[in-house]
Amino acid sequence: MDSDYGLPRELSDLQKARSAYKPELPPCLQGTAVRVEYGDTSSAVDASGAHTICRTFPHTYGQPLVHFLRATAKVPDAQIITDHPAMRVGVVFCGRQSPGGHNVIWGLQNALKIHNPSSTLLGFLGGSEGLFAQKTLEITDEILSTYKNQGGYDMLGRTKDQIRTTEQVKAALATCTALKLDGLVIIGGVTSNTDAAQLAETFAEAKCPTKVVGVPVTLNGDLKNQFVETNVGFDTICKVNSQLISNVCTDALSAEKYYYFIRLMGRKASHVALECTLQSHPNMVILGEEVAASKLTLFDLTKQICDAVQARAEKDKYHGVILLPEGLIESIPEVYALLQEIHSLLMQGVSVDKISSQLSPWASALFEFLPPFIRKQLLLFPESDDSAQLSQIETEKLLAHLVEVEMNKRLKEGTYKGKKFNAICHFFGYQARGSLPSKFDCDYAYVLGHICYHILAARLNGYLATVTNLKNPVNKWRCGAAPITAMMTVKRYGHGPGALSIGKPSLHPATVDLNGKVYDLLRQNATKFLMEDVYRNPGPLQFDGPGSDAKPLTLCVEDQDYMGRIKELQGYLDKVRTIVKPGCSQEVLKAALSAMASVTDILSVMSSPSHVGNTPF
Amino acid sequence: MDSDYGLPRELSDLQKARSAYKPELPPCLQGTAVRVEYGDTSSAVDASGAHTICRTFPHTYGQPLVHFLRATAKVPDAQIITDHPAMRVGVVFCGRQSPGGHNVIWGLQNALKIHNPSSTLLGFLGGSEGLFAQKTLEITDEILSTYKNQGGYDMLGRTKDQIRTTEQVKAALATCTALKLDGLVIIGGVTSNTDAAQLAETFAEAKCPTKVVGVPVTLNGDLKNQFVETNVGFDTICKVNSQLISNVCTDALSAEKYYYFIRLMGRKASHVALECTLQSHPNMVILGEEVAASKLTLFDLTKQICDAVQARAEKDKYHGVILLPEGLIESIPEVYALLQEIHSLLMQGVSVDKISSQLSPWASALFEFLPPFIRKQLLLFPESDDSAQLSQIETEKLLAHLVEVEMNKRLKEGTYKGKKFNAICHFFGYQARGSLPSKFDCDYAYVLGHICYHILAARLNGYLATVTNLKNPVNKWRCGAAPITAMMTVKRYGHGPGALSIGKPSLHPATVDLNGKVYDLLRQNATKFLMEDVYRNPGPLQFDGPGSDAKPLTLCVEDQDYMGRIKELQGYLDKVRTIVKPGCSQEVLKAALSAMASVTDILSVMSSPSHVGNTPF
Repeated sequence: MDSDYGLPRELSDLQKARSAYKPELPPCLQGTAVRVEYGDTSSAVDASGAHTICRTFPHTYGQPLVHFLRATAKVPDAQIITDHPAMRVGVVFCGRQSPGGHNVIWGLQNALKIHNPSSTLLGFLGGSEGLFAQKTLEITDEILSTYKNQGGYDMLGRTKDQIRTTEQVKAALATCTALKLDGLVIIGGVTSNTDAAQLAETFAEAKCPTKVVGVPVTLNGDLKNQFVETNVGFDTICKVNSQLISNVCTDALSAEKYYYFIRLMGRKASHVALECTLQSHPNMVILGEEVAASKLTLFDLTKQICDAVQARAEKDKYHGVILLPEGLIESIPEVYALLQEIHSLLMQGVSVDKISSQLSPWASALFEFLPPFIRKQLLLFPESDDSAQLSQIETEKLLAHLVEVEMNKRLKEGTYKGKKFNAICHFFGYQARGSLPSKFDCDYAYVLGHICYHILAARLNGYLATVTNLKNPVNKWRCGAAPITAMMTVKRYGHGPGALSIGKPSLHPATVDLNGKVYDLLRQNATKFLMEDVYRNPGPLQFDGPGSDAKPLTLCVEDQDYMGRIKELQGYLDKVRTIVKPGCSQEVLKAALSAMASVTDILSVMSSPSHVGNTPF
Repeated sequence: MDSDYGLPRELSDLQKARSAYKPELPPCLQGTAVRVEYGDTSSAVDASGAHTICRTFPHTYGQPLVHFLRATAKVPDAQIITDHPAMRVGVVFCGRQSPGGHNVIWGLQNALKIHNPSSTLLGFLGGSEGLFAQKTLEITDEILSTYKNQGGYDMLGRTKDQIRTTEQVKAALATCTALKLDGLVIIGGVTSNTDAAQLAETFAEAKCPTKVVGVPVTLNGDLKNQFVETNVGFDTICKVNSQLISNVCTDALSAEKYYYFIRLMGRKASHVALECTLQSHPNMVILGEEVAASKLTLFDLTKQICDAVQARAEKDKYHGVILLPEGLIESIPEVYALLQEIHSLLMQGVSVDKISSQLSPWASALFEFLPPFIRKQLLLFPESDDSAQLSQIETEKLLAHLVEVEMNKRLKEGTYKGKKFNAICHFFGYQARGSLPSKFDCDYAYVLGHICYHILAARLNGYLATVTNLKNPVNKWRCGAAPITAMMTVKRYGHGPGALSIGKPSLHPATVDLNGKVYDLLRQNATKFLMEDVYRNPGPLQFDGPGSDAKPLTLCVEDQDYMGRIKELQGYLDKVRTIVKPGCSQEVLKAALSAMASVTDILSVMSSPSHVGNTPF
C-alpha cells in the first residue's frame, strides 16, 4: 500500500502550471526573524463549560493567545526568536481529504528548511494508522514537487479520523518518543483537532517533549469560532459545487421541465449549502439549522416545497433547483427520533429485518410511511460518531418522492392545475473533494504551514494555527495561534442555566448562525431566488483572470476579523489612558470614571456563566 | 413561459469576462466577400444505401460539396457572392442543450448584420414547439449581450427533439411561409439534422423558398463522419466530466478504500467515456462498442471487473475508478433481449406488475436474477426512439452490486484473500450540460454560425455547416458545407451483402471505431491505467493560461482532416497531369497509364456497393 506514496507522477499542463505557483507570505512571516507576541490568557468560548474544560486540560488550558509579528513591529513585549535549532517534526493527515491539505505540508517544510536546513519533516504514511505504526516518509523538495498546489491527500494518504482510544494515544506517544519529534502537526477538522488537544495534554502530562499543533483543514467549513474564520478546502469545495449547481440551473432553465433536488455535503452544519446558494442563486435551499430551529416535520417540508412548485406553476414555470445538505435528514425532528430508535435497536443486536416490528407505534407508523429505498438506508448501522450514514441516505430522493405524491394528489383534487411535476435527483458528495485547490486555499494552507513552524519554534503546545483578516489580500493577513482548549464547548442536553454539563469538552461543528449576516442575506433574497430564476454562474474554478481571486462570500459578508477588533478595542483603552492622566480636568475624570464603571458593569453581567447560554447544543 | 426568454440577467465576474470574449474568424470568413467553391457531386457515405437515399431525397441528394474560400484565393471556378440582399432567417434549438449553442446564434446574427444591416434573425421560443406555433423573438445585439459564450439554451429554450410527423412538418412549413423566411437554421444532433434534411426535401418539393441548414451541435459527439470532425458541446462536456472524474481518482487514491463506478452520458456511442478516459486515466472504462462487438454478457463483465479488483488487491490496492457510458446496458446482449421483450409487452399494454410473468422463460430467469431496483428501472416505458430510459437505469449500481456479490463469494471460497470490496456509484448526467462552453466550443460554434449565413447566401438547401482541420489553430480552419443526405445511412438488420435495406435513411450516431487510432491508444495504455494509478487531472475548465486552449484528445489523435486529404489527393492528380503531358517520354506515359489503370481498378472495386458492408447497423 505505502509503496506508491510520494512518488512523482504525470501532471497535466494545468497541474504543472499550478505546481509552479508560489503562494505569497504575509509580511509578518517573511524573512527568518519573527516576533512572537503573547496576548492575554485565553478563556473558553463556552464560559459555562470553562470549569470542566480547565479540569480536563490542566496543562494546556488558559494559555495565552499568540500573534506573529514582523521583527520590526513596535510591540515592546514581543519576543524575537533568533535561535533556530534543527527540529524534527511529524505531520499527519486526519479525516476527509480537503483541497489544499498538501500545501500545509509544503509551507511547513519550507519554513523548517529556511530556518535550519538540518531540520527534518516526516510525513506519516496512511494517516493516523501510519502514526500508530511509525510508518514515515521524509518530506523533501523532490517529493513535494508534484504535490504543490495539488488536491487530495495522496502524497501521504489518510485512514481513520480518530486518535482517541487509550491504545491509539499510547501508540502516538510511543511514535513521537521513538522518532524524537519536537513537534507533531495534525491536519484535520473538529474531530482531529479535538484529538490534537487531547494528545497535547497527554504529552504534557507524560513530560513528552513533542509539542502538538493543529491546523484547521476541513471542507465542511465548520471549524469556525472567534479565532478561526474559515477552513482550508471549504472555498474549493464550494466553488466546484457552485459550478455544478449553476450548470444544473442553466440546464433546468433551458429545458423547463424538471425540478432538480441536489444533496450537498454538510453533516451537522449547512455551510456548504449556504455558500453555494449565495454563489449560484438556485430557487431554494433547505438548511438543517432552519429545520431544526423551526422543528419542521417531513410534512411541513413537503408542503413548503409543494407550495413553491405551485406558486411557480402559476407563473408558468415548471422547473427549479432545490439544494439540501446531507445532514438535513437528522434535523427533521420525527426522523431523528426514528433514527435514534433504530440505532438503539441495532446497538442491542436486533437484526435488520426485526427492527420494524420492535419500533414504538409512533416510529413504526412513520417508518412504514416511508418509501422502501429510504427504509433500507435508515436501517444502516450508524457511524462511529453515532450519526446516521448520511452519505448513504438519499434525502433528496425522499423529498422528491413526497413532493411528487403530494403534487399528484393536488392535481387529482383540482387544487393544482399545472403540468405534471418531474424531479431529477443528484448527490454532489465526492466529485469535489479531490479538486485542484483554489488559489485562496493554496495560499491559506501554505501560510498555515509556515505558522505551524513558528508555533513549534516558540515551543507552544496544544495550539491551532490561525490566520485572520482573510477577506483582505495576503499582505494584510494576521497570523497567530490559539489554544485549542479555548475553542471547546461542553455538550449539554438542555439549554437552561441549570442544565447539567455532561460529556467531554470538544470542538463542536459550528452551525449556520440564523441570526448572522450571511443567513440574513439569504433571507432577503429568498423570494427573488424562488420566483425569478436569477441564476448566477460563477463558472469553473479559475486560476488566472477574472474570478481566480474570489473568496467565499460567507467569509466576506461575515467580516469577522475578531483579532482586528480586539486590537481596535485596545486602541480605545490606550486612548482613554492617554486622555485621562494626571493633569486632566475634574470633569473629564468624572465622565471617564462614570462611563468606564458602566461599561465594566455591563460587560461583567454579559460575561457571567449564567448569561452565556446560547452556545451550541 | 416565454416571458422570460432573452431577458438580460446578472452575470458573475467570470461570466462577464466571457461575454466580452470575441472568437476569431478563420481568414476565409473575414471581410464581406467570400468565395464559394463547388466541389464534386457528393455521394452517400453508405454506398449500399445510396439508391434508397436518392429515392427518398430526389431534390436534395447528390448536391456538391461546398468550400468557402478567401475572396483572394486562386480558385478559378469559385464564385464570389457580392450581392447581399436583406434576409429573414429563423433559428431553432433542437434536442439536448449543448454548451456553445448560443454562439451559433451569435455568429449567425453577426454575419447577417455585417452583410446587410437590414437582415432579420428570428429565434423560435421554446424550441420546436415555438417553430410550430410561430413564437419568435428577434435576436438583437442587446438580447445577445448576456448570452455570448454562455452555456445552456436558455436564451430561447428548447422542448422536444423532433420535427418529424406530417403534422409537425406541415406546421414548420406554414411558419416559414408565414414569416417569409429565406432560411431556417436547425441546431442539433443526429436526430435533428435528419429532420433538417427531411424538411429541406419537403420544402423543395413544396417549392417553399426557405432553405434549411443544419449545425452539428450535440454533447454526445456522435454526429461524426467524413465531413464532420466533432460537435459543438463535446469538448466542454468532456472537460467538465474529466475534471470530476479526476477529482474522484484523487479521492480514491487518498482514502484507498473505495471503488468508484461512474456512469457517463453516451447512449448509442461511448465517445464521452473514451475522451474522459484519455484525459483522466481512470483504472478502467467499459465501452458499449467493445461489449457489443465481443458479445460480453453481464457475467463476463462482472468477472472481468472482479479479476481486475483481485489483481489490484494482490498489489495491495483496494481502490479504483471505473467508467461506463449510460448506453452500456443496451449493449449487453442478454439485457438487450430482455429489454426488447419488456418493451414489446409494454407496447401491448401489459401492466408493469404482470410483465414478469409473461416473459419468455429465459428472459424471466435473467429478470428474476437482477436486483429489485434494476428490475423497476428496466420496466420503465421506452423513449420515443424505442431505446430504454437510459438516464434512469443505474447500470453502475448493477455492476457494483454484481461485483460485490462475486467478490464476497470469492472471499468466502478463499479464492480472494484481500479486504472487503466497497463501491460508491455516481451518475454524471446533468451537471455538465449547462456549463460555460470551453474556448474551443465558443470558437467552433461561432464560426459555424457564420458559415450558416454563407450557406444561405449561396441559396443552398439541406446542407450541414462544417469546419475541418479543427485540431489546428483557427486561422487554419477550413470552412464548408456538405449535403446532409451524403452523411446518411440506411439501417439494416443483418450485415451480409444480401441484407434487405429497410427503414428510412437517417443520420445514425457514429460509434467508437474499434479499429481506429483513438481506441488503439486506449488499448495500449489499458494495463498501465488499470494497475499503476497513473491518474491525471486536467483540472477545471480554464479560460486563461495553461490548458485553456486544449482540444479534445480524440480530435487530435484521429487527425481526420478529410477535406484536407481530398485537397492533397487533388494535388497529386494535378501533378500527374503536369508531368504527363504532350512532350513527355513514352516510358513516362506508359508507367503513368499502367499505374493509373491499376489505381482506378482498385478504387472501383472498393467503392462498389457490395463491398461497403461495414456501415453502422
